[in-house]
Amino acid sequence: MGPQYTGGSKLVLPKDYREWTFLTSGLGMSYTPGAKDAANPSFDNVFVNPAAYQAFLKTGTWPDKTVLILEVRGSENHTSITTAGRSQNTVMAVEAHVKDASHGGWAFYAFGTGQEGALLPKTQDCYSCHEQNGAVDTTFAQYYPTLVDVAKAKGTFKGGSH
Amino acid sequence: MGPQYTGGSKLVLPKDYREWTFLTSGLGMSYTPGAKDAANPSFDNVFVNPAAYQAFLKTGTWPDKTVLILEVRGSENHTSITTAGRSQNTVMAVEAHVKDASHGGWAFYAFGTGQEGALLPKTQDCYSCHEQNGAVDTTFAQYYPTLVDVAKAKGTFKGGSH
Repeated sequence: MGPQYTGGSKLVLPKDYREWTFLTSGLGMSYTPGAKDAANPSFDNVFVNPAAYQAFLKTGTWPDKTVLILEVRGSENHTSITTAGRSQNTVMAVEAHVKDASHGGWAFYAFGTGQEGALLPKTQDCYSCHEQNGAVDTTFAQYYPTLVDVAKAKGTFKGGSH
Repeated sequence: MGPQYTGGSKLVLPKDYREWTFLTSGLGMSYTPGAKDAANPSFDNVFVNPAAYQAFLKTGTWPDKTVLILEVRGSENHTSITTAGRSQNTVMAVEAHVKDASHGGWAFYAFGTGQEGALLPKTQDCYSCHEQNGAVDTTFAQYYPTLVDVAKAKGTFKGGSH
């Protein structure tokens, strides 16, 4: 099942994305020049629909109807018996990056904490940044540990050793 | 398909555990009293076989043949365009926590970076610590954000608000 829309251009949050294939999690990642590590950073969990993951393993790139979900969760320390480090808590926001030829190709959607994602205008920085810096097909595959070597082997990795 | 063993007591690393259901990721988490945040912390990614996850959603606890995989990955900063925060890199070690009545109930296995997990003796601290502090059935469900509320609703959450 590919991406589902409502009201023309809004993306419906996939109810089961937490059961999709996990790609990575980062903590406090920023791309802003000169950024400092945050005192209270967020985790970024990334999931992809399983069919797209399987296609990537075979081809080194994303098929049409790929849906990448970025789930931003707060972090905390000293939870339960934790004495150091940080664990995850509630969802702060969700975003999606969707490849859908029937909707003009790759597009970003912002859900906040809701169930419907608003299309981000193509003029926003996320588009140009992903275009310039995404290792595979405008996606930040350089941060997806299980896919980096696949993309390099398939010759689809941009800016790496191939 | 439940846990697979070799040589009597060694657990075979499930080849597709990265496609299992993701539970959480922590960074630099320690349970040692007085521990300080590490300068170069590791990420802990936790996965569970999908059938066990579905059973937990219905019952608030783990069925027989549950396999939890803890994947420890190194972290790094300033990767690609990252200016702050930490992203994941290579696997440092893998451990499993398996509920299998045919093998004496819950048991821990350590894989290091190999494909066969050695059974950890029941005298090791991990057993007593999980027994005492695990929120659900000796597992650290208190760190699995999507399962905390499920367990509380089902009355299986130990030490919480129920």
